[in-house]
Order: sequence, then C-alpha cells, then structure tokens
Amino acid sequence: MKTPSYGSYDPIAALATPSGESALALLRLSGGGGKDLNDNKSGTAITLLSKLFSKPEKLLNAPGNSSVHGWIKEKELIDEVIVSVYRAPKSYTGEDAVDISCHGGTAVVKKIMAALKQAGFREALPGEFTFRAFMNGKLDLTRCESVMELVQAKSDKARGQAVRRLSGALEAEITAIKNLLIQTLAEAEIYLDYSEDEVSLPEASGEKEGLLPGRSRAEEALSRLRRLADSWRRERLYAEGALVVLAGRPNAGKSSLFNYLLKEDRSIVTNIPGTTRDWIEAALSLEGIPVRLADTAGLRETASVALGEVERIGIEKSRELVETADLVLYVIDGETGITKDDIDFIQAGRTDLRKAPRIVLWNKADLSPKPELPREGKALFPVSAKTGEGIGGLCRLIAETLEEAAGGNPAEAGDLKDSAGPGTERQKELIDAAIDSVEEALELAELDIIAPPLRDAVNCLGEITGEFTTADLLETMFSKFCVGK
Amino acid sequence: MKTPSYGSYDPIAALATPSGESALALLRLSGGGGKDLNDNKSGTAITLLSKLFSKPEKLLNAPGNSSVHGWIKEKELIDEVIVSVYRAPKSYTGEDAVDISCHGGTAVVKKIMAALKQAGFREALPGEFTFRAFMNGKLDLTRCESVMELVQAKSDKARGQAVRRLSGALEAEITAIKNLLIQTLAEAEIYLDYSEDEVSLPEASGEKEGLLPGRSRAEEALSRLRRLADSWRRERLYAEGALVVLAGRPNAGKSSLFNYLLKEDRSIVTNIPGTTRDWIEAALSLEGIPVRLADTAGLRETASVALGEVERIGIEKSRELVETADLVLYVIDGETGITKDDIDFIQAGRTDLRKAPRIVLWNKADLSPKPELPREGKALFPVSAKTGEGIGGLCRLIAETLEEAAGGNPAEAGDLKDSAGPGTERQKELIDAAIDSVEEALELAELDIIAPPLRDAVNCLGEITGEFTTADLLETMFSKFCVGK
Repeated sequence: MKTPSYGSYDPIAALATPSGESALALLRLSGGGGKDLNDNKSGTAITLLSKLFSKPEKLLNAPGNSSVHGWIKEKELIDEVIVSVYRAPKSYTGEDAVDISCHGGTAVVKKIMAALKQAGFREALPGEFTFRAFMNGKLDLTRCESVMELVQAKSDKARGQAVRRLSGALEAEITAIKNLLIQTLAEAEIYLDYSEDEVSLPEASGEKEGLLPGRSRAEEALSRLRRLADSWRRERLYAEGALVVLAGRPNAGKSSLFNYLLKEDRSIVTNIPGTTRDWIEAALSLEGIPVRLADTAGLRETASVALGEVERIGIEKSRELVETADLVLYVIDGETGITKDDIDFIQAGRTDLRKAPRIVLWNKADLSPKPELPREGKALFPVSAKTGEGIGGLCRLIAETLEEAAGGNPAEAGDLKDSAGPGTERQKELIDAAIDSVEEALELAELDIIAPPLRDAVNCLGEITGEFTTADLLETMFSKFCVGK
Repeated sequence: MKTPSYGSYDPIAALATPSGESALALLRLSGGGGKDLNDNKSGTAITLLSKLFSKPEKLLNAPGNSSVHGWIKEKELIDEVIVSVYRAPKSYTGEDAVDISCHGGTAVVKKIMAALKQAGFREALPGEFTFRAFMNGKLDLTRCESVMELVQAKSDKARGQAVRRLSGALEAEITAIKNLLIQTLAEAEIYLDYSEDEVSLPEASGEKEGLLPGRSRAEEALSRLRRLADSWRRERLYAEGALVVLAGRPNAGKSSLFNYLLKEDRSIVTNIPGTTRDWIEAALSLEGIPVRLADTAGLRETASVALGEVERIGIEKSRELVETADLVLYVIDGETGITKDDIDFIQAGRTDLRKAPRIVLWNKADLSPKPELPREGKALFPVSAKTGEGIGGLCRLIAETLEEAAGGNPAEAGDLKDSAGPGTERQKELIDAAIDSVEEALELAELDIIAPPLRDAVNCLGEITGEFTTADLLETMFSKFCVGK
C-alpha cells in the first residue's frame, strides 16, 4: 500500500468535530470530480458511500446541496444519519463531497469510520480538505490559512480578524498591491524603451529625470505594505498581550499603584504569585489589550547597602523582568522628588533604543504637584495611588503606548477595519521581504536595475496568495492543520 | 422573563457537537411549524435565522432538505457557514429546523450563539430537540432513550443494541406484546358476556372450563416479556462486566491459574494491584464479556493456625470479595485431593441460593486425573495451570456460566439478535411490573377479576413507549439528556 500523500486524490474521510460524547458528530467525505479525474477510478465520495447507505438510489440521485435521511449499515444497522450531498465543483473541496451528521458517541463514530475505510475511503491527512480546495482553485492561500486561524481564535477580536481574511480581504489587498508593482514594472520598461530611442518622456507623468517612473505607484504600494506589517504587530499585541513592569526606588509606591490598577480594572483574570517572593504578577485587560502587570518587589531593595544572597537573586530576577518588558512604568516618589537613581534609570532607557518604552510616573501627586521639567517633554505623568488621580488616564496611556510601539498610528489602523492584515508568520515574512525589495527599488536611480527587486516583490506577494508555490511549501503548511479541515 | 420549560415551544438553539478546537462545529436550531403553532408568533427557526444570514431570501425560499452556503453576520461578518434547512414536519423535531455547520473554533461558536440569542432564539434545555420530536409524534420514548444510549455507548456491542432500539425494534416488540394482552382482555370480556347469558363457549378455543380464555396468548406475552427481562441482564453483563474470584486452599495453584488465564487472554487491559497485598486483580475479556479476575491471596492463609492481625484483615477482605463475586472459581489441589475444607466451601455455595454460581476446578490434572464423583454432577472441571490443559474450555465455561446467571438460555438469546431488549432502568422496571401483573392474571381463576392486572400490564407497556405519560416523567427523562440532543 502506498503512503498517502497530499498529491494523491483518493476518496478521503475524517471526523470534523471534536471526539467525545455529544448530541451529534460530523464526518466529512470528499473524492471525485476534482483534480483526481484521472487518478481515482474506484468511485467518488457519493458512489462509495452509497454502498453503506440504506437508500443507495436516493443518495446516488441526490442533487448537490441536498440532504438525505437514512441509515449507515453493513450487514447490520450502524447509525441513523443525515447526509448532505455536494457535487463538484460546488463543494468546499471542489470535488464530490458528503457530510455525514451522525449521533455523537465514540462507538458510533469508530464504527462508521471503520465501515468507510472498508468501502474504499482512506483517513484524510491534516488539512487535506482545504488543500484540495486550494488545488481546485476554491480558496487562495490566505483564505486557507484563515480557516485554521478561525478555528484557533481565542478572542472575538482574533475571530473577527481571521474572518475578514477568510472573506478574501487580505487576498484582495495583496492582489491590488501586486498590480501596482506590475504597473510600475511595465512603465519602467516603457521608459527604458523610450530612452533607448532618445525620445523625451511625456511631461504629464511629472516624474523627475532619472527617477523611477511610476514612483508614486511604487510609493503607494510600499505604504500599503507597511500598513499590513503594522497591522500584524498590532494583531499580535491584541492576541498575545504585553508585559508591563512597575519599577522604581523603594517606597515610591509601586505596590499601591499595582493594587490600584488591579482594582480599577474589572476584568482581572488571574492573580499569579511569582515563583519567588521577589515579584508578583497579575493579568488584566487594558482597552482590550491583555496585559501582564508585574510588580518588581526585588527592585525595591536596590538601594539597600547590605544585601543577602536571597535579595541578590531577587534583584537579578527583577532586572531580567524589566529587560523583557514591553513597557516599563517607572515610579518616582513625588514626596521625596527625583533622585540620581531615578535619572540614571530613565536615561538608560532613552539612550538604548532596544529597550522597551517607558512611562515615568510622578506618584503621590496629591501630596506634591508635578514639577515642570521641559527637558523631559511629556515624560512625567502625575498619579496618586491614594486618591486615584490620573489612574484612568494612565490606563489609556499604557494602551496607546503599547499600540504605538506595535507600529502604525491609530488613524491608519482605523482604515484597516474593513480590511485585514497578515494572519501568519509566513505571510508576514513575505510582506517584509516585499517591503525590502520595494525600498531597494525606490532607492535605485538606475532604471535598468530596478526591475529585479520589483520582480522579487511581485513574487513574494504571489507566494502569499499561492499564485507561485511549491509542493514542499504546501505540504509543510497544510500538515499543521487539524484533521477534518 | 419566564423560565424556559419543556412545555414552551420558543425557537431554540444549541451547540450539538463537543466544544473545543476542531475543523467544524454544528449548531442546531428548531422552532415553528410543530406544536407551537399558537404559542410562538416571533418567527420560525428559518425566518429568525434569515435576519443573520448573508442571503436572507435564498434561506427563506430554501426547500426542505436543502443546504445553503453563506455568511452569518450582524454588522460585521461572523463566519462562513453551510446551513441545512428542514421544513416541518420533515425534520428531527417535527418543527422547522436548521443545522448550521460553522468553523470549529470556540470564539466562532460563542459569537454565533450570542447572535442567535439576539435574533430571538433561546438556549435549548437538555434533550429538548428529542423532547419536541416525541411531542410531535416523530419518535416513541424507547427510541428517544436509545438516542442517549447511542451517544453514551462505549463498546460496539452497546452501540449495536442501542441502534436496534433506535430502529424501533423494542417499540415494535412492546406494541406486539401489548396487543396480545389487549386481545386476551377482549376475549375475557366476551367470555364473561357469554357466561352471563349461560351460553356455552365455542369448543374450538380449546380452553378448559374456568380457566382464562386466551390463556395461550397471555402465556406467549409473558414468555416474550421474560425474554426482554433476560436480555436486559445479559446486556448489563456485556456492558458492565463481571467479577470472577479465584478461591481455594493454599497451594491449590490459584496464582498459577490466575497467571495462566491472563497469559491465555490477549486482550488484557490493566493489571490493578490490590490496595493491600492480600489480593490482586486483572481485567480481561472472555468471549466478549469484560471480566475482572481476582486472586484472593488472603484465602490461602485460611488453613494457617496462628494468624497475625494483618493476615486476619487480609482474609476478611478476601471473604468480602468472594461474597460480592458474580462467579467463584474454587480450585481443588488435584495432588492432595478433596479435603473437608473444600467440601464445606462448595456445599455452602450450593445451599445458599443467593450466593454467586461456582465452578469447581480440579487443578494439577496433569499429575492426578479427576476422580469420578457422581454426586457432584458436572461440578469438577479438570485443568492444569502447568500444561494449560482445560484452560480454553474453562474460558468458555466461565462465559457460559455468567451468561446463564444473567438469565435466559443461549438459544432464546439468539432470537433477540434482530430484536432488542430494554435499554434503560425505566424500561426494565416497567417490563418487570408488567411481568408481575401478567403472572398474577394467569394465577387467577376468577374471570371477573383478571381484567385489572391485565390492564395494569397494558398500562406499563404503554408507558414504556410513551403512549401514556406525564409531564413530570418527561421532564425527568429528558433533563438527563445532553444539550443539543
């Protein structure tokens, strides 16, 4: 027996719903009428199933998009089912296909699957239904990938983004950008032809001598690609959340602020004690962003002169936490004022660009108003963990800062609401590669050498939708899907 | 808002497949066109869903048993789905109904359910779809109950029995038996009428004077009811298994026999060490019956003279095990022969009818052939844990003895293969009650007092299928179902 592969178009079957006791289970069958026309002579999903069906003629004659009630049976009855019949090419896979809605018991599903194998189906590989949908031109790769994103979506925001990609929004945007680049390429070639003939360019184009013709189109493509890349980072932020760390000198009021932030936010999920007593962490949601807020108790001890071994380890851990933070809230004790320690810490953050953004808080603002420090710009944000002054504004500032760090300004983000950014690492990497290539093209003055990077960019975009692809890529991608999809 | 109840026929919705990440999920909707004609004016499952569907007209005009592809949406798209439309009375519930096959993500299902509630559906109560199917005359109660049995079936045998009940085999048998009893009742009444007129009975009936007319019919009903009751015990045996305990004097070879039985059987599932070291237990399958085989190491010590506290507790536990056994394998040491201890144990088993059946084994048959003991009947079964002599036959004997103890002779059991016994305690209790009533009627000589017990029996049988029923009974029964069923 040959090992099943994505390239072999045998009739396939899979349980498409989770296994377990439930009212119903859905088994999915596909085969025949698509790419396999010359590959599989044993029968289609419909003809093979008819051998196990109580009303074979009714099933064989059922029109596409119709449901037939009956029994799955071998010698004895197996289960009472509803089968939904789809005829190529009007099915998910583009092949003849059947969905069997049976009773949701494990023994029932096991027995039906065994009977289906006996009848000539093989168990589907992960993602094989969607693979066939792609091969039969039913879905491009961005929509294929969105199917798994939808299944894995944990929040409604993630679902909404995946469903926009499923509707073809990303495919449409990628195709539009690709067309801009193809037009640029075409114009560059026309220009080169003209140049060779020493004919002056039409003035109307407004392009400067020696510069890339169609430059504005390439610039528009670049800006739209960058917006997609920004959207990716924002989407990750909302999906994966951010680590926000409270730091500052001892008695600056970090712990009170920590507790006040938890109290303020009503969607606290968990309260995770640190593995050591050196820091504590809690999960909250700020303007829809999942935030892990950590209070670095260890940093409190930095100023102590005599440190024991335990304290030393604690401080080390707290520093690591600050290093891995997505945002640091540095708390200044408004009562004692700014110290050299404070300035050192803040400046370290500003000179090292790899470091996370910092918000400097002027705490105990109820006791001592914030000083005017023109050099610090917007840096000092007054709050009071005692009266609650500034806490609401701080929550919004945290969310805005994280969004900004994740890329893009909010106005542009708004534009993407009816559109969709990339949903997978694969798409994001290809978009980044396309950006690099377009940037390279825009920097090049020589018209006869801009074609290669532009063509690279076009190829990257074609790979995103699956216009250009390889068997290896497809196998790697679809094998990550779940079975039955 | 009123509390939802089984009596209120609002449009209902439920997830019918297990929750979790999977390729697909199935949501089930029902409402309108059935018993609720005067109850619910808000709309049917189809009209309400059309408010959330991307192609409302196509859905509204879809014929029964057809599938429509489209999107569930509110302001924004929620998911791409296939909806299967069923029109009353041709649906599971007998109402207008829709199955939504959507992507299997938790966020997707949550959002669709929220949208459905917004559109006027309420979440279905457990078993409410099947309840409506019963109320609309689509399924009798035996078939309703078989639906949950099917879902919960752990083995293929259990599935097969449940599916025969689902096909209506039990309903048909109960109805046939009920009709026999109704005919008996009718004949008894005719006889009484004749008697009053002092007219002699037709000779053809062959009934003896004073005895119940139609007696043969009542006897047939009784025998068929008993066969159903036997089938219940057998079904429990195959579903729940039996405890088989090895007992005997020390050195009779119980442990060697235990190990040989485990080796013989290739479907050993687990090897469960006892909580004390006094007995060990293993799970095996003998002729399809799940058997827990226990070796009572403690009983080995019975003959010891000086017992410590630990041994005493061990023996106590072993004795408890023998008391709760479904079958005891008593091992005699063939080398030393039968002792007084052996005879005491065997006789105790025969005089106390409540005790489990016993098989007496003549072990070490390779060393010393089984003696002829006419008084013991078939009692001595020769085996050798050393050579394996008799072990295969012993396995079959164990299975037969358990089957026999579970009721019915195998020949009659064979008849039930195309039929089905009761599947729930409820059905079994009503069958037992019917048996008692028919037995009572058959024992009564007075014709004018046999009608009440016969009518009781008819009522019991009518309650099994749901011909006679109460709202309380239905609520209790269906609330044990899973949601979405």
